[in-house]
Amino acid sequence: MAADSAQLSSQLAEATLNESVSALKAEFSDRVPIRSIISRTDGGSGFAGQHVRVGGWVKTGRKADKDAFAFLELNDGSCPGNLQVIVEADKGDLGQLVPTGTCVVVDGVLKLPPAGAKQKVELRVEKVVHLGPVDPAKYPLPKTKLTLEFLRDVVHLRSRTNTISAVARIRNALAYATHTFFQKHGFLYVHTPIITTSDCEGAGEMFQVTTLISEGERLERELIKNPPPSEADLEAAKLIIKEKGDAVSQLKSAKASKEEIGAAVAELKRAKENDLKLEERSKLQPGIPKKDGKIDYTQDFFARQAFLTVSGQLQVESYACALSSVYTFGPTFRAENSHTSRHLAEFWMVEPELAFAELKDDMNCAEAYVKFLCQWLLDNCYDDMEFISRQFDKTCIDRLKMVASTPFERITYTEAVELLIDAVKNGKKFENHVEWGIDLASEHERFLTEVKFQKPVIVYNYPKGIKAFYMRLNDDNKTVAAMDVLVPKVGELIGGSQREERYDVIHSRIAEMGLPIEPYEWYLDLRRFGTVKHAGFGLGFERMLLFATGLDNIRDVIPFPRYPGRADL
Amino acid sequence: MAADSAQLSSQLAEATLNESVSALKAEFSDRVPIRSIISRTDGGSGFAGQHVRVGGWVKTGRKADKDAFAFLELNDGSCPGNLQVIVEADKGDLGQLVPTGTCVVVDGVLKLPPAGAKQKVELRVEKVVHLGPVDPAKYPLPKTKLTLEFLRDVVHLRSRTNTISAVARIRNALAYATHTFFQKHGFLYVHTPIITTSDCEGAGEMFQVTTLISEGERLERELIKNPPPSEADLEAAKLIIKEKGDAVSQLKSAKASKEEIGAAVAELKRAKENDLKLEERSKLQPGIPKKDGKIDYTQDFFARQAFLTVSGQLQVESYACALSSVYTFGPTFRAENSHTSRHLAEFWMVEPELAFAELKDDMNCAEAYVKFLCQWLLDNCYDDMEFISRQFDKTCIDRLKMVASTPFERITYTEAVELLIDAVKNGKKFENHVEWGIDLASEHERFLTEVKFQKPVIVYNYPKGIKAFYMRLNDDNKTVAAMDVLVPKVGELIGGSQREERYDVIHSRIAEMGLPIEPYEWYLDLRRFGTVKHAGFGLGFERMLLFATGLDNIRDVIPFPRYPGRADL
Repeated sequence: MAADSAQLSSQLAEATLNESVSALKAEFSDRVPIRSIISRTDGGSGFAGQHVRVGGWVKTGRKADKDAFAFLELNDGSCPGNLQVIVEADKGDLGQLVPTGTCVVVDGVLKLPPAGAKQKVELRVEKVVHLGPVDPAKYPLPKTKLTLEFLRDVVHLRSRTNTISAVARIRNALAYATHTFFQKHGFLYVHTPIITTSDCEGAGEMFQVTTLISEGERLERELIKNPPPSEADLEAAKLIIKEKGDAVSQLKSAKASKEEIGAAVAELKRAKENDLKLEERSKLQPGIPKKDGKIDYTQDFFARQAFLTVSGQLQVESYACALSSVYTFGPTFRAENSHTSRHLAEFWMVEPELAFAELKDDMNCAEAYVKFLCQWLLDNCYDDMEFISRQFDKTCIDRLKMVASTPFERITYTEAVELLIDAVKNGKKFENHVEWGIDLASEHERFLTEVKFQKPVIVYNYPKGIKAFYMRLNDDNKTVAAMDVLVPKVGELIGGSQREERYDVIHSRIAEMGLPIEPYEWYLDLRRFGTVKHAGFGLGFERMLLFATGLDNIRDVIPFPRYPGRADL
Repeated sequence: MAADSAQLSSQLAEATLNESVSALKAEFSDRVPIRSIISRTDGGSGFAGQHVRVGGWVKTGRKADKDAFAFLELNDGSCPGNLQVIVEADKGDLGQLVPTGTCVVVDGVLKLPPAGAKQKVELRVEKVVHLGPVDPAKYPLPKTKLTLEFLRDVVHLRSRTNTISAVARIRNALAYATHTFFQKHGFLYVHTPIITTSDCEGAGEMFQVTTLISEGERLERELIKNPPPSEADLEAAKLIIKEKGDAVSQLKSAKASKEEIGAAVAELKRAKENDLKLEERSKLQPGIPKKDGKIDYTQDFFARQAFLTVSGQLQVESYACALSSVYTFGPTFRAENSHTSRHLAEFWMVEPELAFAELKDDMNCAEAYVKFLCQWLLDNCYDDMEFISRQFDKTCIDRLKMVASTPFERITYTEAVELLIDAVKNGKKFENHVEWGIDLASEHERFLTEVKFQKPVIVYNYPKGIKAFYMRLNDDNKTVAAMDVLVPKVGELIGGSQREERYDVIHSRIAEMGLPIEPYEWYLDLRRFGTVKHAGFGLGFERMLLFATGLDNIRDVIPFPRYPGRADL
């Protein structure tokens, strides 16, 4: 470390030619994000000689040169890269500084590293401003390589790992890219409701939202503390009414003064009120309120049964039929008891809805959107994608490039089934039998996109029997204007359709499917009054993350996964 | 209409000098958004002579010149303005075209209106491409001016009104401005969970999320269809076991063949299995599963009691303590039985969290964010703000301008209380008594921001007794580093604080407040391992909308309001 001061002064001269690093400080903090220093084409070397404050968590630390100084790899989550930090022994307790997970804020001077070093710039510490220590014996995230499965038990700290933080940045980028894409194209973001009383289909797979249980328990506690009136109490109250009533009669027949009679009538009134209160209290039942043997939802918070939404589509359609191009991006829920790597009980969906649009427009929009997301990651998250590519999926960057630049194949469902039947004839084995009318299985979808076309495929015009009532019936009377976007790695990424805008047709489709009409009256109103051709789709946001990163388990691409038996935090 | 063709040809010449309107068509539709035509400095006159397809809903329509043609004011939700459309009788059924709410798609030629007209351009229809009719006798939104209260009963159609569509565009703008602001400043968007098992404070005001009720009902239906075994069934099963056991014994003592004994043993085994199944089925109880008199939540979907989140703050802190600057923007829930114009059961919150930051940084961030939102509306929603200003609140534009450009006043809670006491001395009457230690009431907050300072005010350093356990204790041991941003019209818009990062202090604060430690162990881990100074705040998104628009009722600034007794759709 002896030649440093000479080296430094030459670096200072160099730095004056460059911009000031302190101008890059996070606007609401004294520190400069590590990304601003090292994520530049020069790797930060242009800042050599400048003073800066940085903060972060130690990824790895080690003492060197007989404990004369320590090297820390510092990461603040702003980028996958670390800043190498050198602390001399007189600047701080090296033993406290080196454990993985330690938080430090330091002031120091940026300097060029020794020739041959991997990093382009490093920081020599002048002052340790803050130290948040870690007891390595207790830290749940030791330096050893941890499996993603292990990390699922440590959701509150796993964002400090390279992988989960890279996923968080990629997820952030995809979310902002989503808003940017739709705003750029004139779509309005609409917050559809999370709590819904509308979606009556398959209520078995919905989570119920209620205050009945807690209200029932509150009442139970209250009744224990303050028991309801007994039969004797009620009889006594009736007796008092009778007495007070008799008193009034007597006063009246005795032609007592108005004041006297008035006072007695007031007493009678009070006695009656008291009795009424007791009567009501005596009817209180602990537990969930029932009426005619069924749960009495009129007493629930919303005066009816309420659920967590499974999709914002129906509601956002009402906005499309007024504002033309809209989208929703929010959480959706399924109470399915699925323990697979592809299902979550709580997940995020992007659902655009376009008025004055047909299936072709819907497909164009879906294709443009997916391409935009891929290009966005290449433009804004390349460093994270490189990390993921090294650690998990060597093909992920090429996949993004391919999808961003290749026109999607578009084939009808009927063509898709023919291709699959041909494949079977040529020896391809599927677990699920292929014939016209089946719902394509994941193996079929992945064959089409990964093997047959080796690019994204949009399959459209599905048999009406396997699709929802709101999809527009085609003229063949057999298929509906539905479309699925299939991509390599995950299969179905997007499902959408042109919506049935003809009142008579959708009315009979609802009946045909054995659904009740009444809950859909508002939805029918959109067709009754000023109906418009419209179309939309839904993209499972976590599916997109699996596609982008190549990770295998959906529980690793959402910050706080919810699935049967687990909802940590 | 006679001179039109001559007029048109001169307009065509003019149009060639201008850009092509068809280049402005919505990318995933054939139509051109009305905004692209009329929201220009020339009001669209530069497009005169060009052919275009537009679609929208008729705001008002009337027949003219003895039914020779009709005027339609067409709106497609892309902007508050309408396009005037002229249809001649031979182009369509004028009677069907003119009712309010009718959807039409038309091809036509843009032309300059007669001198003196309000509009700068109008459309002469060549072809009616689509017509979605309305029966005016049945349409729930007649042309007459409707109250916002009335519209709350028509949530599926109210976005077709001028006010609700303006609010939707303003809401969209504020949401995108929020993302833009935080992304620009290097914050990462984190999706905190909606379903939570973490927030144990005040569980009484939380909605419970459960599958126990529907599972109980499913079981009840199943048991009716397929009744549980009777006592006699169970006895019979036991008898069969005995018989089969006896048979085995007899065969054994008779030294029967291995095959014979084996077969008898197998029968015995089946009988025992059958008995076990019956035993289990006999224990099934319809309704909610209980254990020791309490609801058995181990049988609920998440194997424990789960709720809808009231705030993403605690969870997002875990991400800030890894990624430095993060924010969450999502729905939050309160099961409070409030029927006021300021409360919703479901509402959206923006919650940034900054690591390496103190209260001052938090205040700087809040101020910059609110200013950014105001300026964004002035830059991007001026036409909607003008509409709102005309219809509801003449001061709303000035308020945005003032907040965007005026430094916020910053005073301590102690100073605020002194100012309020002074005001009382000078004759100001408050409903709530003022003294150090009280929670400021809305009347106090509004006095400070509206009367005393007439600009936004940040009040900070509140008494610890009225604030949450996680707020950082100041050195005076009496106050915590909390802050509220107060603005004219709504009072408190933002609440935030520096978080307590010292393990020992937060541990004793939790105990001091009588909260259990166990559910917060994960939160304490953030302080146990690599703790960092951090701070954050929450902005009630609907509050911001009330502030921006000056509307009075929060139910009108969210698309699908949820409140006690109501959750339409």
